[in-house]
Amino acid sequence: MSEQNASQGTDISELTIAVLGGTGDQGRGLARRFALAGHTVYIGSRNAERAAKAAGELVEAESATLQVHGLANADAAAQGDIVIVAVPWDGHRELLVSLADRLAGKIVVDCVNPLGFDKKGPFALDVAEGSAAQQAAEVLPGSRVTAAFHHVSAVILLDPEVEQVDLDVLVLGEDRDATDVVRALAEQIPGVRGVFGGRLRNAHQVEAFTANLIAVNRRYKTHAGIRITGL
Amino acid sequence: MSEQNASQGTDISELTIAVLGGTGDQGRGLARRFALAGHTVYIGSRNAERAAKAAGELVEAESATLQVHGLANADAAAQGDIVIVAVPWDGHRELLVSLADRLAGKIVVDCVNPLGFDKKGPFALDVAEGSAAQQAAEVLPGSRVTAAFHHVSAVILLDPEVEQVDLDVLVLGEDRDATDVVRALAEQIPGVRGVFGGRLRNAHQVEAFTANLIAVNRRYKTHAGIRITGL
Repeated sequence: MSEQNASQGTDISELTIAVLGGTGDQGRGLARRFALAGHTVYIGSRNAERAAKAAGELVEAESATLQVHGLANADAAAQGDIVIVAVPWDGHRELLVSLADRLAGKIVVDCVNPLGFDKKGPFALDVAEGSAAQQAAEVLPGSRVTAAFHHVSAVILLDPEVEQVDLDVLVLGEDRDATDVVRALAEQIPGVRGVFGGRLRNAHQVEAFTANLIAVNRRYKTHAGIRITGL
Repeated sequence: MSEQNASQGTDISELTIAVLGGTGDQGRGLARRFALAGHTVYIGSRNAERAAKAAGELVEAESATLQVHGLANADAAAQGDIVIVAVPWDGHRELLVSLADRLAGKIVVDCVNPLGFDKKGPFALDVAEGSAAQQAAEVLPGSRVTAAFHHVSAVILLDPEVEQVDLDVLVLGEDRDATDVVRALAEQIPGVRGVFGGRLRNAHQVEAFTANLIAVNRRYKTHAGIRITGL
């Protein structure tokens, strides 16, 4: 099972992390965990002041030693070695188009789930490009686009009582080195295992599966995640 | 977590199981496990002789006490209290249309994964109805259609060395009682947990996720499955 350890040979300790849409629950949760792991984290938002406020709140809640800064999305994108896209699906494409130059050459991690909700609950939206991740790859031809962190529970990421997160993060992409880096990034969250999950053309179902996890959450009153067995 | 135990209150011990397409690897694997659990199982095939041969081989390999019989698909469909659809995607719709009368009133469990393969590996096929399960529901308006068993490894189901199967079977459907019965059926396989996974409109991504598990299998040289965490 040497493949399982591929991410362990990948040193990402010096890399800075930007989280676009970092003031949302999922973005703040990821920012918190990566900052706690020792990374310098740039929270991006449409509104730089709101980003600075979110960064300040994380530092205040945790420790003055945390390196978390709030910036406008474009400035955060410029600062991050790895750039996580955690924005709402509505506006996803436009934001990435506007940042294509700044994101060139970088590892971009799309974790957006295009979902709709009606009285019957959540459902997957149709995406012309196939998935949010494929849309990102299309509008960011100069970036190393991966997809990951779809199934993380923001509640759990933000909960100071939860030290170990019981979750495998599926990392998808065409670029082996990039997916290894993102697997290693996922493993900065205690308890999480980063697992290669396939090519970007198989990202739709990983994004859409979040609707099933929401259905599980509603039925069983929990915050569900997944583990891959057989590894 | 009383919801978790819903299937435990569902007594399915007297129910017979039909497996359409039961001579394929997945179908034979499921037939084997349900017969070992004490159910009378009807293996269906386009070719009744081939079905009888597959049934005979299972009995020979395991025990003369196993109740496994081989029939043409239409006769198996008539015999089963629960009817599992494990046929190839190509021909799925036609077979179900032809059996709609015989399947009326029954619990039908669709476990078909509409996948394509090319030199880059597996990928999800577009399905006009949304998913194989939704197609089944459309052509079987008189049946209680559920979707389950998408991620079971046929190799593991057929391996006499594997007693405990490390897998959660996601069961989808609109009919609560039917999904509870199918969850209980899944739990006839030692180690397996049956978990409600949402409505049929969210079946596509569960079917398509099999492509990701195949990608995991190729990368990690394993037979991957999934577990839902937080339950």
